[in-house]
Amino acid sequence: MKAYEINEFGIDNLTLAERETPAPKESEVLVKFHAASLNYRDLMMVKGLYNPRLKTPLVPFSDGAGEIVEIGEQVTKFKVGDRVTPIFMQGWIDGAIDNSKARTALGGDLDGCLREFGTFDESGLVCIPDHFSYEEGATLPCAAVTAYHALYCSGSLKPDDTVLLQGTGGVSIFALQLASVLGCRIIITSSSDEKLEKAKELGATDFINYKTTEDWDKKVLELTEKRGVDHVVEVGGAGTMAKSVNSVKVGGHIAVIGILTNNGDFNPTSILMKSVRMQGIFVGSRQMFEDMNRVFCQHTHLKPVIDKTFEFGEVKDALKYMESGSHFGKIVIKF
Amino acid sequence: MKAYEINEFGIDNLTLAERETPAPKESEVLVKFHAASLNYRDLMMVKGLYNPRLKTPLVPFSDGAGEIVEIGEQVTKFKVGDRVTPIFMQGWIDGAIDNSKARTALGGDLDGCLREFGTFDESGLVCIPDHFSYEEGATLPCAAVTAYHALYCSGSLKPDDTVLLQGTGGVSIFALQLASVLGCRIIITSSSDEKLEKAKELGATDFINYKTTEDWDKKVLELTEKRGVDHVVEVGGAGTMAKSVNSVKVGGHIAVIGILTNNGDFNPTSILMKSVRMQGIFVGSRQMFEDMNRVFCQHTHLKPVIDKTFEFGEVKDALKYMESGSHFGKIVIKF
Amino acid sequence: MKAYEINEFGIDNLTLAERETPAPKESEVLVKFHAASLNYRDLMMVKGLYNPRLKTPLVPFSDGAGEIVEIGEQVTKFKVGDRVTPIFMQGWIDGAIDNSKARTALGGDLDGCLREFGTFDESGLVCIPDHFSYEEGATLPCAAVTAYHALYCSGSLKPDDTVLLQGTGGVSIFALQLASVLGCRIIITSSSDEKLEKAKELGATDFINYKTTEDWDKKVLELTEKRGVDHVVEVGGAGTMAKSVNSVKVGGHIAVIGILTNNGDFNPTSILMKSVRMQGIFVGSRQMFEDMNRVFCQHTHLKPVIDKTFEFGEVKDALKYMESGSHFGKIVIKF
Amino acid sequence: MKAYEINEFGIDNLTLAERETPAPKESEVLVKFHAASLNYRDLMMVKGLYNPRLKTPLVPFSDGAGEIVEIGEQVTKFKVGDRVTPIFMQGWIDGAIDNSKARTALGGDLDGCLREFGTFDESGLVCIPDHFSYEEGATLPCAAVTAYHALYCSGSLKPDDTVLLQGTGGVSIFALQLASVLGCRIIITSSSDEKLEKAKELGATDFINYKTTEDWDKKVLELTEKRGVDHVVEVGGAGTMAKSVNSVKVGGHIAVIGILTNNGDFNPTSILMKSVRMQGIFVGSRQMFEDMNRVFCQHTHLKPVIDKTFEFGEVKDALKYMESGSHFGKIVIKF
Repeated sequence: MKAYEINEFGIDNLTLAERETPAPKESEVLVKFHAASLNYRDLMMVKGLYNPRLKTPLVPFSDGAGEIVEIGEQVTKFKVGDRVTPIFMQGWIDGAIDNSKARTALGGDLDGCLREFGTFDESGLVCIPDHFSYEEGATLPCAAVTAYHALYCSGSLKPDDTVLLQGTGGVSIFALQLASVLGCRIIITSSSDEKLEKAKELGATDFINYKTTEDWDKKVLELTEKRGVDHVVEVGGAGTMAKSVNSVKVGGHIAVIGILTNNGDFNPTSILMKSVRMQGIFVGSRQMFEDMNRVFCQHTHLKPVIDKTFEFGEVKDALKYMESGSHFGKIVIKF
Repeated sequence: MKAYEINEFGIDNLTLAERETPAPKESEVLVKFHAASLNYRDLMMVKGLYNPRLKTPLVPFSDGAGEIVEIGEQVTKFKVGDRVTPIFMQGWIDGAIDNSKARTALGGDLDGCLREFGTFDESGLVCIPDHFSYEEGATLPCAAVTAYHALYCSGSLKPDDTVLLQGTGGVSIFALQLASVLGCRIIITSSSDEKLEKAKELGATDFINYKTTEDWDKKVLELTEKRGVDHVVEVGGAGTMAKSVNSVKVGGHIAVIGILTNNGDFNPTSILMKSVRMQGIFVGSRQMFEDMNRVFCQHTHLKPVIDKTFEFGEVKDALKYMESGSHFGKIVIKF
Repeated sequence: MKAYEINEFGIDNLTLAERETPAPKESEVLVKFHAASLNYRDLMMVKGLYNPRLKTPLVPFSDGAGEIVEIGEQVTKFKVGDRVTPIFMQGWIDGAIDNSKARTALGGDLDGCLREFGTFDESGLVCIPDHFSYEEGATLPCAAVTAYHALYCSGSLKPDDTVLLQGTGGVSIFALQLASVLGCRIIITSSSDEKLEKAKELGATDFINYKTTEDWDKKVLELTEKRGVDHVVEVGGAGTMAKSVNSVKVGGHIAVIGILTNNGDFNPTSILMKSVRMQGIFVGSRQMFEDMNRVFCQHTHLKPVIDKTFEFGEVKDALKYMESGSHFGKIVIKF
Repeated sequence: MKAYEINEFGIDNLTLAERETPAPKESEVLVKFHAASLNYRDLMMVKGLYNPRLKTPLVPFSDGAGEIVEIGEQVTKFKVGDRVTPIFMQGWIDGAIDNSKARTALGGDLDGCLREFGTFDESGLVCIPDHFSYEEGATLPCAAVTAYHALYCSGSLKPDDTVLLQGTGGVSIFALQLASVLGCRIIITSSSDEKLEKAKELGATDFINYKTTEDWDKKVLELTEKRGVDHVVEVGGAGTMAKSVNSVKVGGHIAVIGILTNNGDFNPTSILMKSVRMQGIFVGSRQMFEDMNRVFCQHTHLKPVIDKTFEFGEVKDALKYMESGSHFGKIVIKF
């Protein structure tokens, strides 16, 4: 079978290798992948910015979707033909995260999904909602679960809450959709009025172009009559953290999900002075994934927003497209 | 009556003014103060470092204790002779903090306790545990409630938890005592072996002299077999935040209580990568105070640790003593 | 001013008395009532079934709405002309309930709202949402807050949850509306197909006529593929509790809000065997009321469902109408 | 190997069968049992009172302890020689309980521990604390985890809480020990002054002989100055539930863990009127078990209280001894 491998860092150093198709052990299933999706983490992993001591060769990309083509003899949860996606951390089934669960992430600790076939323990998979295609299913494991965890689990989101979303990447757009289910007030930032317009169609209620309104934190306070928002989904970027703390209410919640390359002038004292809760959100458990899928199944108008689909042979183009930052929602690879 | 006032910033600019003794309104009581205690916030307030736009004249010091000498006609909770201490934020009775509650702090938003008499709404006071003196009672409102909130409320401390405490100031020592009630493992840092010895007597179990062990975060990981601690009570200081995040376990809890003057090389990405919860703790509610007092009443061996007591006329000396940082526990003013 | 009084129990023994219009104290406001609403508790109170040792004379009815016509000199939260409703328990502002807060309920511990004027401490009132009339505002304090507390606070309701509602009284209909905001699956029971049809218009998704389907618990299990529902809002009635436990999922939540006159064959063992959480919901705090009002303000299509409006002189008719049990939503008195 | 089997109900119908020693599958381990302990559920199971439709033959007893003598080739968590105990529900690893997890209990859904050898998936075992013998380890899975779940997880026990314990069976005594770690006030009931004396040695603070004080709920209110206790660990018995609700504070917590054979005059209305939270506690997850073991490891003075030890051949005597109700703590079988 074919599998992409990181052997040396750099997009152009990704190699397409020939590997033996694995056979499932007693409690494993064999998945034939039909789609994968990109996250910013994957881009950093390929470029060597995420973990410079990454063990190689590694199959990149945490997110994929496919069908089960073979099952081990002890498997009871799945059958051949089931449409599934592996969970991000194979070892995080339920409950709180811990160190050992955290070290089971696909496309990092373990081989990822950018390959034709993969074996997974049956405990490490969830079914794709019936009304989602493989491409749509492949967008869920990292970005959608992160958004669900941030708002529904860590944030206990309520219909009267106001949410601040930064940019229009995968997590932000899933967060937008999940917050719109509750009819929340949703403030979203972007550098593009066109993208803000698209966000409006998905349910955002307030819009800030951070190119034209550099002090977007002041604008957030203005929009909320100086109270600040209940939740910030902090996706990182130059100096966003300080602005996020400015934007949140006293006693508010900041879900930290982004790989911050620059913490600007952030002073943690502000966490104290505003009694802020800052929660690092590293994707989520299988239980969260299953709970989230029930939301999608009950609210079938919600569909993952796919910006662009690339072929299996165009993975490098897809990574460069992500690097350009011009996407709205998810970038997908179709096998 | 006599009252200290901040009119201009600076310890030596504190003035002792003559004010009219106030009369309690319908739902108010008149408290005759017998003691006050110092917090680092008070020192910063006096020096103008906490709030440069402070409205003056202001009576400083949030923490005091006294007896009720007169009550308004609607008062039902208290009677003349009751031994009480005002709560830190007069408006934070119960539930979550919000912006308006946060703006009712004594010795900042409102006149504090460094005066002979003060009137308070009956909702803004708690009784001092019977076995505590006025000096002991005066140590509770800010430091003890902060420690209680951090560990018991935000942290839901359990007997198998490991707690990291920084230094031997008022909050750290109360946190030490409150964690010792549960028999927790308690790692404490100090620049002085003598202070570490005192901490041992109060129940600390592991000790790091950060003068001789500069990389105390590595020592913490070593002591916890690389797992990290469950809770850090982060009291601030040069570059402590980065070390605190290093010291905490994946999924752990950092209670941010200190006025951080220097965030060193702290990179918020680490919050994400370790799924850390960082909670700003700004003292606590009256309900927390009352709950905490029940702990003191049930565990009568716990006594506030008073480092040194100054007379009412020696307030400036007391502030300078705090500035020197050589205390262990609380500094108290006796009226 | 005119005020209804319970002097002896029984609907027909309600008396319309002449009382002196009260004057507000320093921190009080004087409310001129324009509307009141009925709860089942009021009916029981009047009939002597709620508290046989009730101190009389008592002004009945916990729920009312009016405008502020005078304020005490210390009042800061309100001004003359504000449209308000008193909270159910005058002493439950925030946080958890306790014994002393529980003993401050209007129309029971304290005089209620069936009078032309009343004085209330400014801490015991909330503003009515602007788009609600006095009649609509008067429906909120008991029934709506109970539903909000049950589903949003105790239940942490999520969009993928399934809710079981019993009958079409005031609490059930508010619960229906509040659950519909999240797009939850909502199963509702009634003895009338006509009422079920109305419930459908408000967002209910599944319907059981318990006259024709006596074993409605089995029907609930059938509708949920044997899983059971996430939440039951248990409003009481003959033998409902046992059926409610049958209907709820393993690990599910039953909000107990009804005055149960008959516990039928209920065996608490079932609580253990299904790991059920059963939470008594006794209305809620002012904070919950304010949070709920923000939901109404953000989702302006939600309007209290008023079944019938009576004049101030028709209070006895209103009580008898409630006794008949034929209402859908709230019964209101207009002053 | 030898294994006890339920083929027909009744203590004297228990049979000692010869079975083939099982071989571990890839992810399984083979445990050689050295001890087992009895719970009331086991007695009911044997007598056919727990589940009349039990699938037989079934090896009874959920709780056992032994050493690993063989491991499957995929096993990574354990090695030969490890001292372990299987968890009560093999499928409840972490997070909340659900229907499928609940159906994996040993000695009920699955074969239990009253046999010389058993195979278990490596996910279904925990290590015994080093300082516990096999007999002591065998007491933990059901009784100790139930007590931990009830007080520490469901109850979030705090040092200032007051706990009411009923009788001196296994769960009550573990609850007593776990509450004593926090220095809680602990009220315990028994029919024997001698047992109350023993409870005092373990840390109980208040004692009620329910033979001589039949209205023990009134005594509890008297002891708590009418406030009621924070937590009741309700272990069942004739009419205890109504008394438990009387004994608990407004807003208090009742952990329902007992198989109630008689609900007396219990009226669920009281749940509402006192805003009680009643939580069914069906043992607990592996995560809770591991967390609890850390408490035992940190507080090594806590030792499981073993009332009496029987030989493997004396199982029927052990069951009859439990039936007599004269035990204090746990009854153990030594292999």
